[in-house]
Amino acid sequence: MKLFTWGIAPNPRRVKIFLAEKGLNVPSEDVGVPGKAFLKPEFLEAHAHRRVPLLLLDDGTYIAEAMAICRYFEALHPEPALMGTNPQEVAVIDMWERLAEWEGMQAISEYYRNSKGSFTDRSLAGYSKTLEQIPALIERGEARLDLFYEKFDAQLSDNEYVAGERFSVADITTLCTIDFAAYSNLGIPENCQNLQRWYKSVSKRASVVN
Amino acid sequence: MKLFTWGIAPNPRRVKIFLAEKGLNVPSEDVGVPGKAFLKPEFLEAHAHRRVPLLLLDDGTYIAEAMAICRYFEALHPEPALMGTNPQEVAVIDMWERLAEWEGMQAISEYYRNSKGSFTDRSLAGYSKTLEQIPALIERGEARLDLFYEKFDAQLSDNEYVAGERFSVADITTLCTIDFAAYSNLGIPENCQNLQRWYKSVSKRASVVN
Repeated sequence: MKLFTWGIAPNPRRVKIFLAEKGLNVPSEDVGVPGKAFLKPEFLEAHAHRRVPLLLLDDGTYIAEAMAICRYFEALHPEPALMGTNPQEVAVIDMWERLAEWEGMQAISEYYRNSKGSFTDRSLAGYSKTLEQIPALIERGEARLDLFYEKFDAQLSDNEYVAGERFSVADITTLCTIDFAAYSNLGIPENCQNLQRWYKSVSKRASVVN
Repeated sequence: MKLFTWGIAPNPRRVKIFLAEKGLNVPSEDVGVPGKAFLKPEFLEAHAHRRVPLLLLDDGTYIAEAMAICRYFEALHPEPALMGTNPQEVAVIDMWERLAEWEGMQAISEYYRNSKGSFTDRSLAGYSKTLEQIPALIERGEARLDLFYEKFDAQLSDNEYVAGERFSVADITTLCTIDFAAYSNLGIPENCQNLQRWYKSVSKRASVVN
């Protein structure tokens, strides 16, 4: 088994934190070109998926997509549960994880990939053809991120964690989104006190610090 | 329990087909304004999520996001399995479902919502604030859809179904994506013979026809 990753990139990081929470050690290989904003050509040529994280199983099967990889390890190693333990909890966690991904991670990615010179012609990850940057997505990404902060701050006003009373994979996606946004100087607004409280707490977890 | 839906919209349709495959009957309410391209104001005011499908549970909990709703019913009623029966199958199905969603459903939504006059100021679903249409996303949506067709045609060259040898939720998302694209005259290209073969077959399923 091998996990393909890339430096501090937010999506492989979701899997790394998940594995650390589970106490699992999976051999990994960083396939980024050092100091550059792209993956090694030999990785891109070998893998039609062209994105990380990517998990190679011992029988040769590939699992792409951070959440599919996490779901694989959750099924193999149910404890500690990070994706719910009964139908309702499973659904609520899946919902909040998806909201973090669609409304948060996509918003900051939209902002980031359309504003940086290093992503010219690559407005979306994983495509082999040219997808030109779209300047209007910079502003839209920022607007969406504001609404993401507002929604998650409200959710955390009466929940300790993003999906309720237990730390879950929804917290992991939210944290990686916010750290990515902060890296672009678009961190949590001052007035989002509930989100600030939550952020301070989850940032101290061993899985995040190490 | 109640499921909020909207006419032939592709995302509630994913849940409807899923429930029909399970043989489940869930009371539902269509919250679209007849003949218009928006949801009823009373629904939008009452539900911060502002999107369908949305599932209301008997204890008052809301589950948003088509896949979170499906996962709830899969956990409650495991047979017939539509999300996998072992860790590897679960992960492979989740991966393909996500690829259909990100690379297919998002592509056609991008095309559709940015090209129709009825979606001015609503380039994305579910937002309470103005998000202006971005004309460049029409072209990018089409380009992404081409690549989605290419990838899924290749996958179906040696798999009967999208995620392997069994019908799964990945087929449901793929079918709803393609029907939505066909509705916009962007159906499966002639040369995607594997996808055409699969499409003909899954379109005949009782869950889809009825």
